Amino acid sequence: MPLLPRRFERIKSVLNRRISDLTVLIENVEKPHNLSAIIRSCDAVGVLEAYAIFNKEKFLTFNSTAQGSQKWVKINQYKKTTEAIKVLKEKGFKLYGTNLNPRSIDYRKCDFKGPTAFVLGAEKWGISEEASSLMDEHIHIPMRGMVESLNVSVAASALLFEALRQRQVANMVPESGEGMSQETYKEKLFEWAYP
Amino acid sequence: MPLLPRRFERIKSVLNRRISDLTVLIENVEKPHNLSAIIRSCDAVGVLEAYAIFNKEKFLTFNSTAQGSQKWVKINQYKKTTEAIKVLKEKGFKLYGTNLNPRSIDYRKCDFKGPTAFVLGAEKWGISEEASSLMDEHIHIPMRGMVESLNVSVAASALLFEALRQRQVANMVPESGEGMSQETYKEKLFEWAYP
Ligand SMILES: C[S@@+](CC[C@H](N)C(=O)[O-])C[C@H]1O[C@@H](n2cnc3c(N)ncnc32)[C@H](O)[C@@H]1O
Ligand SMILES: C[S@@+](CC[C@H](N)C(=O)[O-])C[C@H]1O[C@@H](n2cnc3c(N)ncnc32)[C@H](O)[C@@H]1O
Repeated sequence: MPLLPRRFERIKSVLNRRISDLTVLIENVEKPHNLSAIIRSCDAVGVLEAYAIFNKEKFLTFNSTAQGSQKWVKINQYKKTTEAIKVLKEKGFKLYGTNLNPRSIDYRKCDFKGPTAFVLGAEKWGISEEASSLMDEHIHIPMRGMVESLNVSVAASALLFEALRQRQVANMVPESGEGMSQETYKEKLFEWAYP
Repeated sequence: MPLLPRRFERIKSVLNRRISDLTVLIENVEKPHNLSAIIRSCDAVGVLEAYAIFNKEKFLTFNSTAQGSQKWVKINQYKKTTEAIKVLKEKGFKLYGTNLNPRSIDYRKCDFKGPTAFVLGAEKWGISEEASSLMDEHIHIPMRGMVESLNVSVAASALLFEALRQRQVANMVPESGEGMSQETYKEKLFEWAYP
């Protein structure tokens, strides 16, 4: 089916606003509605590609909560924590582990304007010791209630929205494709327009 | 079982930080994991009581995502939209409907330091025409992606965290019980400590 011009314009306008230096790495997040809500928030904020570690012999599964956003945010999937982290470090990302340990700092006090990857952990266990030991910084969203943590998709979204807010205040949010290299732009446009 | 002193101190310290003039009204949000994530975020931000409209002959149901937070955030449940809204207006809340209509404004441009109620709609349909017509203001979280809306629990949390942020910047966040009347404080303490 030929691509309608209106559709092509819509795809381009979204790609124009994508941000290649803001991402999440999710480690063994399992529940489809959490994965789905996280990817949907990535799409909404403008994350170009996301990263996932899945130790088990499993695939990421989404449900209706994703609303199809998994088609618009590529997820790079790894089996080994070290492997995923190596890739992100080589790309120049600063890795922010989400932890409530004493070294961890209030997310509002951090500067997320540089290349930023938020590392989020499994529903039950949080991020692994291994991942934790490889982080550049440990951050948390302060909790004021009886329950000690947030739902993982809520935490991921709060962090992404805070990074977006900081970049908006600093006038650093792409509007015309400047959020990625020209090469990447061409590749993505082809991928999105002719899947 | 007698209440341990440590537990009593913990309960008091959380109650000391509760905020009575910040809340959500959820209209026919149905999925247990969404309801659960919303209530968990209310607890985390410090919402004292939440509000729900449920037209159907149904009860609110929670799952493990709530982590027990439904015990710490009372939910006032109504069958009629008009009834719930009347109660909130009488309490002096300004009602912010979440809508993507042309009248709706960017949530970052609003001032949520006064008595604030965020009105959130059902997963499929959004807020009703009836609720919509009774709002004081219409707001939205700008969407930069292909999908047109956020998961409802993510949207609720983003709004609550923004309200909290604004109040923190203005030094308006309660730390020692000043977020509610003394009478309410006494009642809640009794309710929480001796359920
Ligand atoms: C439900 S939590 C895991 C709780 C686990 N018991 C622990 O202690 O880490 C799942 C994930 O959500 C994210 N998360 C939850 N609450 C958070 C908070 N307050 N700040 C930052 N991330 C949070 C983290 O990525 C965490 O690994
Ligand atoms: C999935 S949305 C409903 C979508 C529905 N098709 C509509 O047009 O309203 C469910 C609820 O999440 C909240 N929501 C989702 N995206 C939002 C956004 N960008 N800004 C504010 N609230 C949002 C609203 O409360 C909405 O009623």
